[in-house]
Amino acid sequence: MRRIKLVISYDGTNYCGWQVQPNGITIQSTLQKAIEDLVCEKIMLTGASRTDSGVHALGQVAVFDTNMQVPDWQFTGAINQRLPRDIVVQESVEVSNEFHPRYCNSVKTYQYKILNRRRALPMERFYSYFVPRTINIEAMKAAAKYICGTHDFHNFCSQRTEVQSTVRTIDSCNIDENSGFILLTITGNGFLYNMVRIIMGALLNVGYGHKKPEHIREMLEENDRKIAGPTAPAHGLTLVEIKYLI
Amino acid sequence: MRRIKLVISYDGTNYCGWQVQPNGITIQSTLQKAIEDLVCEKIMLTGASRTDSGVHALGQVAVFDTNMQVPDWQFTGAINQRLPRDIVVQESVEVSNEFHPRYCNSVKTYQYKILNRRRALPMERFYSYFVPRTINIEAMKAAAKYICGTHDFHNFCSQRTEVQSTVRTIDSCNIDENSGFILLTITGNGFLYNMVRIIMGALLNVGYGHKKPEHIREMLEENDRKIAGPTAPAHGLTLVEIKYLI
Repeated sequence: MRRIKLVISYDGTNYCGWQVQPNGITIQSTLQKAIEDLVCEKIMLTGASRTDSGVHALGQVAVFDTNMQVPDWQFTGAINQRLPRDIVVQESVEVSNEFHPRYCNSVKTYQYKILNRRRALPMERFYSYFVPRTINIEAMKAAAKYICGTHDFHNFCSQRTEVQSTVRTIDSCNIDENSGFILLTITGNGFLYNMVRIIMGALLNVGYGHKKPEHIREMLEENDRKIAGPTAPAHGLTLVEIKYLI
Repeated sequence: MRRIKLVISYDGTNYCGWQVQPNGITIQSTLQKAIEDLVCEKIMLTGASRTDSGVHALGQVAVFDTNMQVPDWQFTGAINQRLPRDIVVQESVEVSNEFHPRYCNSVKTYQYKILNRRRALPMERFYSYFVPRTINIEAMKAAAKYICGTHDFHNFCSQRTEVQSTVRTIDSCNIDENSGFILLTITGNGFLYNMVRIIMGALLNVGYGHKKPEHIREMLEENDRKIAGPTAPAHGLTLVEIKYLI
């Protein structure tokens, strides 16, 4: 059996997230069907990140094992022919059978996009969170700096999280402004359930003036569960890239 | 009766263009219904540009006459409440009864977006024309320069055009490149039917190496109808802005 690694981009709007579900069409199930149709075997597709309903991806990573003997790069076009236009395989490459998209060490980059203007833009309605109010961007930039580094992010994850440790290392966390958009770009070795959307919600709370930038530090340092503010909606979030360290 | 001018943005994907049609939902008919629901009168909405099916707008302009007595800026929010999310009024302002969005002198800006990379991006499938082949951008830039100025654009309009003169003045016509996108931005005092899409098709023919940049000059100078190349598809085109000169 060969292991094929895929880099996948998708528009999450019309899917119930990545993970196969009993009810509702998911990215994983759609891809799995397309691949099975190609390789004429039952396959199991394993993704790196279980993105939520409405979340988008430019560089999701997934693997499957197959007996099919074609050059690895040919899987890209052959799978794309069997996919709807809102899922596009960018790359296919054969990897070692030890490679696992979730358990191998990686650095993930996510981007969260806010549209900050008086009136919405129709073309952006599925791809950015529309916020028609005054936002103090400098305060958000100051707050974002506290996220960098190794911290216990127990105040920045959903109650549904079931992991042993909530300590994660964030390599960079930046707020940028560009013609009406506010972009959060965050890179790290792992993210808890809903972590980026909760961070974005907390940073927005600072941007609105409800909290000082230092509130982020308190949330990271203190043990009692502090309210981060509302979790920012899914459709502003994009999984940009996953880099593997081996 | 007061005349209200609207600046409107829309995602043209799910509409049969601007203009009211017997079959199919259009931007104009959707807006007209929303406005009539608000003002409780029959109104006639007159747009500046009859954009085709699939074409988008950031700054379409349209007017209607009404007896409703509210401050003009309040129409924006009140109409938006009655619209689907793919049409958004950006601005509403009372204008003189002489103002006509099509007959008053104006300068329009259109943008045509090409996605030039090996694999498509799902989020761009409705907003840019995907071209996965080598394009000579410098040749396109050189060709675009010939478009500027006052010319007879009879070779750059659809056969369906029924106008007295095909002479138009183009103030600027630029090709820019930005992370996988090729953008045509074109500004002028008037555009013939399908003119921007035919210009884009002709420029792409140059970009592919099928024609020299000078071919554009020949098409502008010669009287016999020359083939411009394929008309670029509608979904890459956006009406960006209309500025009135009075």
